[in-house]
Amino acid sequence: MARAHNFYAGPAVLPEPALQAGVEALRDYKGIGMSVIEISHRSKEFTEIIETTEADIRELMNIPDNYHVLFMTGGASTQFALIPMTFLKRKADYVDTGAWSAKAIKEAVRFGEVHLAGSGKEGGYTRIPDSLDLSPDADYVHVTSNNTIYGTQWSEFPDTGDVPLVCDMSSDILCREIDVTKFALIYAGAQKNMGPAGVTVVILRDDLLQRVPAELPTMFKYTTYAEKKSLFNTPPVFPIFMVGQVAKWLKDIGGVKEIERRNREKAAMLYDVLDRYDIYRPHAHPSSRSLMNVTWRMTDEKLEAELLAAAAERRMYGLKGHRSVGGLRASIYNACPVESVKALCDLLVEFAESH
Amino acid sequence: MARAHNFYAGPAVLPEPALQAGVEALRDYKGIGMSVIEISHRSKEFTEIIETTEADIRELMNIPDNYHVLFMTGGASTQFALIPMTFLKRKADYVDTGAWSAKAIKEAVRFGEVHLAGSGKEGGYTRIPDSLDLSPDADYVHVTSNNTIYGTQWSEFPDTGDVPLVCDMSSDILCREIDVTKFALIYAGAQKNMGPAGVTVVILRDDLLQRVPAELPTMFKYTTYAEKKSLFNTPPVFPIFMVGQVAKWLKDIGGVKEIERRNREKAAMLYDVLDRYDIYRPHAHPSSRSLMNVTWRMTDEKLEAELLAAAAERRMYGLKGHRSVGGLRASIYNACPVESVKALCDLLVEFAESH
Repeated sequence: MARAHNFYAGPAVLPEPALQAGVEALRDYKGIGMSVIEISHRSKEFTEIIETTEADIRELMNIPDNYHVLFMTGGASTQFALIPMTFLKRKADYVDTGAWSAKAIKEAVRFGEVHLAGSGKEGGYTRIPDSLDLSPDADYVHVTSNNTIYGTQWSEFPDTGDVPLVCDMSSDILCREIDVTKFALIYAGAQKNMGPAGVTVVILRDDLLQRVPAELPTMFKYTTYAEKKSLFNTPPVFPIFMVGQVAKWLKDIGGVKEIERRNREKAAMLYDVLDRYDIYRPHAHPSSRSLMNVTWRMTDEKLEAELLAAAAERRMYGLKGHRSVGGLRASIYNACPVESVKALCDLLVEFAESH
Repeated sequence: MARAHNFYAGPAVLPEPALQAGVEALRDYKGIGMSVIEISHRSKEFTEIIETTEADIRELMNIPDNYHVLFMTGGASTQFALIPMTFLKRKADYVDTGAWSAKAIKEAVRFGEVHLAGSGKEGGYTRIPDSLDLSPDADYVHVTSNNTIYGTQWSEFPDTGDVPLVCDMSSDILCREIDVTKFALIYAGAQKNMGPAGVTVVILRDDLLQRVPAELPTMFKYTTYAEKKSLFNTPPVFPIFMVGQVAKWLKDIGGVKEIERRNREKAAMLYDVLDRYDIYRPHAHPSSRSLMNVTWRMTDEKLEAELLAAAAERRMYGLKGHRSVGGLRASIYNACPVESVKALCDLLVEFAESH
């Protein structure tokens, strides 16, 4: 079947070359007579897979040697607990920019004092706070880089000085060039911009490992993953293989610089159409608009249902907005082809002009 | 490439029909124009996948309605911590039958008193203890059903009366008929007998949920997975899909009864050859031999290396014993075809008769 237009918020569209490599490796990995999911995680084949994947992520993001790249499981939701469990000794600053930030805060308060350094809640999470009330003595500052549900994104990250900056980058990692050295810890569930569901990538500055309490269970310690190169126990083999294939695709097309160019082009096309017609009401304030998740309501709910039905006829899927916001949402992650965005723009124009 | 003979201890060989279904679903799931790893975990397609997978596991294992079937992550190693974190209030009984039991104990002692109800350590873990010293007031009893490294397996599980029996069944779940009602909690990393790496199946009796402490982080609570049907956050989509395909294959060939018959036949063939020639020294005591992992040493280490090389020439992989035991190990899980076991037996006979 020809490819559908996939606007799911995650798990989401993946690059075709990565999928093709996945199909081949699943059938028979490099002609060894076994599938990639049938080989030991201690085999030379998997050792090469995990090492290459790490090296490619390091190259793409320009990650310095004093940072570890870890492959963990349990998604961002598990990191919401592991981070305060590990680093929250007294007080941490959190910025609440949407549902995922709020969930991170909910887990953190179990472990210590949480200071709300900024919040977009009162404004309906339409924008990233302009200024923050940071605590100079915080154990760390936690931000959510991109807010899938509300369609907002930090355009510039706060300067937290000597206080470690921790960032949930699940929905926009690798979407644009960033300076990793501004962060102490970056984490991302893979299933939006890096690969399939089932693996969480953690990028962690080495000196933070000294803060890991010895008494934590082995699998909840970042030190375990750092010391054993994510191979203390069996890691999620296929998800890691696919993250490697997505990284390879990104390198092949020209790296993060090129994908950022494409992402800005795709997002601009879509916001331009939404801004042009009164029938569309973009949710995010222009200063805080996401390159990854474009959210909007329409003048009435019937029109939203009608538009969703018209989209389905053109094989466009995943456009229904999150239940907490309503309306529509187009997730246009790295792997979303510009053709899909053009097709959606065409529909939006036709729909607006006929209503 | 023709299939190799795969004796890896895990991740391990999978059934060809399951792999074929994986290849097709990865390319395009049921003709929807998207891969199975590109669809939302809230989509109707994935809802059907996870529900069917659960239903098939329930049918295969004859799991009563008062048990939950949960799909978690982090492997058995994470369960080693979650179980005492959740259920160890005062004292728990553990039986040490090998390296994995020992790792479970190492995590448990962080949370309370561990009483060693039995141990095979002094005997080099060659057998499952004949009798146990169980505490009537224990919070639970923990056993490891099958010991991949030493090649031993419980043939009959202990009767723990009213004390909940918790079992790590990672390496032999679904290998034989068991009475689930004897257990309060069964857990298994999928990557040996159920599917690929990346998902942990937990079978939990409903009344145990009342013991889950409210203060635990959301992702560490069994209640979260039970209440949200393993969909609180994004689950490992592809590993779950593959577990479903392995379950379907098992149903198609005649269920657990038939696979048990095959497993007993395969194991008997192999032990029979090992017992026939003095050159082979099976590790496990005959009373405790595993149906899944057959371990042996040889009269000298040079012969072991020679046999491994001869096996590699015949495209037999994964036969090197675990570093802590040495020698050789043939893991002959459910999906290992009888043809592979026959090929190995042929080699063993030829090798013995020519040395």
